[in-house]
Amino acid sequence: MSRVLHLADLHGSLSDPLLDAMTFLNEVTGRYPEAVSFAPGRPYEEFFDPADIAKHLETYLRHLREERGLTDARVRQEVFQYGRTKGLIAPLIARALAADEGIDADPEALVVTVGAQEGMLLVLRALCAGPDDVLLVSAPCYVGVTGAARLLDLTVHPVPEAGPDGGLDPEALAAAVRDLRAAGKRPRACYVVPDFANPSGASMAEPARRRLLEVAEESGVLLIEDNPYGFFGRTAAARPTLKALDGDRGNVVYLGSFAKTCFPGARVGYVIADQRVAGGAGADGTGLLADELAKLKSMTTVNTSALSQAVIGGMLLAGGLRLRDANEPARRFYARNMDTLLAELETAFRDVPGVSWNHPDGGFFAVVTVPFRADAQALDGCARKHGVLWTPMDGFHPGGGGEHQLRLSCSYLTPQQIAEGVRRLAAFVAEQLPEG
Amino acid sequence: MSRVLHLADLHGSLSDPLLDAMTFLNEVTGRYPEAVSFAPGRPYEEFFDPADIAKHLETYLRHLREERGLTDARVRQEVFQYGRTKGLIAPLIARALAADEGIDADPEALVVTVGAQEGMLLVLRALCAGPDDVLLVSAPCYVGVTGAARLLDLTVHPVPEAGPDGGLDPEALAAAVRDLRAAGKRPRACYVVPDFANPSGASMAEPARRRLLEVAEESGVLLIEDNPYGFFGRTAAARPTLKALDGDRGNVVYLGSFAKTCFPGARVGYVIADQRVAGGAGADGTGLLADELAKLKSMTTVNTSALSQAVIGGMLLAGGLRLRDANEPARRFYARNMDTLLAELETAFRDVPGVSWNHPDGGFFAVVTVPFRADAQALDGCARKHGVLWTPMDGFHPGGGGEHQLRLSCSYLTPQQIAEGVRRLAAFVAEQLPEG
Repeated sequence: MSRVLHLADLHGSLSDPLLDAMTFLNEVTGRYPEAVSFAPGRPYEEFFDPADIAKHLETYLRHLREERGLTDARVRQEVFQYGRTKGLIAPLIARALAADEGIDADPEALVVTVGAQEGMLLVLRALCAGPDDVLLVSAPCYVGVTGAARLLDLTVHPVPEAGPDGGLDPEALAAAVRDLRAAGKRPRACYVVPDFANPSGASMAEPARRRLLEVAEESGVLLIEDNPYGFFGRTAAARPTLKALDGDRGNVVYLGSFAKTCFPGARVGYVIADQRVAGGAGADGTGLLADELAKLKSMTTVNTSALSQAVIGGMLLAGGLRLRDANEPARRFYARNMDTLLAELETAFRDVPGVSWNHPDGGFFAVVTVPFRADAQALDGCARKHGVLWTPMDGFHPGGGGEHQLRLSCSYLTPQQIAEGVRRLAAFVAEQLPEG
Repeated sequence: MSRVLHLADLHGSLSDPLLDAMTFLNEVTGRYPEAVSFAPGRPYEEFFDPADIAKHLETYLRHLREERGLTDARVRQEVFQYGRTKGLIAPLIARALAADEGIDADPEALVVTVGAQEGMLLVLRALCAGPDDVLLVSAPCYVGVTGAARLLDLTVHPVPEAGPDGGLDPEALAAAVRDLRAAGKRPRACYVVPDFANPSGASMAEPARRRLLEVAEESGVLLIEDNPYGFFGRTAAARPTLKALDGDRGNVVYLGSFAKTCFPGARVGYVIADQRVAGGAGADGTGLLADELAKLKSMTTVNTSALSQAVIGGMLLAGGLRLRDANEPARRFYARNMDTLLAELETAFRDVPGVSWNHPDGGFFAVVTVPFRADAQALDGCARKHGVLWTPMDGFHPGGGGEHQLRLSCSYLTPQQIAEGVRRLAAFVAEQLPEG
């Protein structure tokens, strides 16, 4: 007779509705395989070819032998053995960041992580030490952040976005920091996705970015900039990242991911953490925040898969250490999808009272507001009866909100599927509205 | 001017001497590249060939197409895309566990993790919910466990091993549980490596294993069994794992690793957690502990690298889903190394008063006791002057102890290097002893 544990005896995060909602959402796509799914924030996968993996691996091994001059024994050690906790491909990532984003990163300030998710966990753990510490997050917020905070029992405080397309509001951050300090709390950092945020799709204009950096500088609150979608604007012109604008002033910890620009299955991301830490491990009595993150990483995963790093390293090399150019076909694909989505929403809903949507200028996501509760139960009915899936927005609001909003992801579909999906969604919405 | 953070403002684990000691130990090998290093618990790497990676990957892809009947599109999805949080290769791992260990594991009770380290973090997080919860650990204890506990701010209570070769003492566990309960604490689980423990090299005899399971059953404390070295006995005969002895009684959460049996650079491990959880996610109102661990994993790393899983899957398939047989050359190699180490210690120290050592019957590690402090400072002097590296044992004792002991790892060296290393160690020890 097997032992039975009780959920109430396990860590509190496991009873949090947030994690149950995520499990439900992860499973719902599988339960309705015939539905058009606007749910997952996945990259389109027809860019991928399994035959490329061995090719990229070989490119990286050749680089080790020919450009770095490693012996066969050292090459073998690099891909098979335990390695530096900070990772193997930081120098390649730093060169790509310089070319793609104008970010001048010391490879020693980089930690290669198991996706941006591990990076987030490490940064939150390092920065939040005690019960008075607070993590600020743009609201709505990616659940990976609020979930990681929950796992570490951290307090999260939402900072609203400035309207449906504005991104995080710098003045709202300044006000939140003041309020928290007045209440005896210690606001430590603010999580933000300035470009094509998940879930809102919103982006911050350049003046707002500059103002946000001023607020960070004045308040001493670090900005945790997460940038998974920055390459995927509807035009090729890019706004500068917070990290690039901040230069070496140390107001930004930058989270990068190769999940959308290379592929998710590698699980390779990174953190740039070039802040100096007094009392840290370096010879001069300081060290880099990256060194502290590496100490924590040895307690979470020890190393990021050397195999995965080698394949991503090969992809970076194959693209001449310029990942943005290599992603131009993907950018055009996603831009066309977003154009299609917005055009189809216009066709379907322009005359429907109470229905509105935002107009992201890139990325994977848009948000539709409807005059009824768009929750998990509504989703289930919509999937069953109308064959279309979306994501309720309420789970993205740590302070409540979003009950009448749904997120549509257009990254994983063809334009034809998007058009069909919006038609199905319109039929569902029509059914929910009061008789006219 | 870059911002300066203060170590004292960061999470307490980062000021813990334990993590600094680990950083020192990770770096000391690099600082003395010419030294004979008994320090790292790394597998011997001449078993590895980079050309095998593409071969193993191809084996796995062929398995997906031919045995599981996946289309090319589904194969592409499997290796490149986000996947199930629990992992892709659980069915293959379950078959290997049945053949190699006589463990009958439901693949649904398995979570594939980024090495055993992530598995440990997830298990500790799930089981320890509040300030009264206590994690028991065999002492001396692998630092990855005490470090993960530190990252989560958990209380750790040491349970001594039964002498230099006995492994964890079941009666000591029973006593510790009684004492903790009497003090109002909630002992939740006990971490143990029954076979060739890191760092002690000790193993539990079969009667002690059976008694330990009784103690677990009676006390309600779960056993967290970590088994990275079980294949590497000095003879091919293996003792049964706690998990195999426990069957489906649910007293054991089992941590597995492919770091030593395949290779570390893949970063693939797994947890078997078949305990039922009342109030959990399943349709019958219960779920498996594995499902709860997967919820947490979506907040740490989302997925284990699909690439790494594919390559490990290919290695499992190549070995006919019997990993123990495939590791027989490695077992013989490590067994010969341990024989060499013990013989050289006998030669060097049999007539030296105050020096003793244990006699592990397998694995990577042995422990030498010396009549002087064997700390990081002594190590540094030994490395500089005598060209040999080892690991101070004090860092492995969460409750203090081990100040006069050093760990020798024999996994990464040839027999010739081991003999030379022990000669150098003997010169260092002679220098530390009082004039005779």
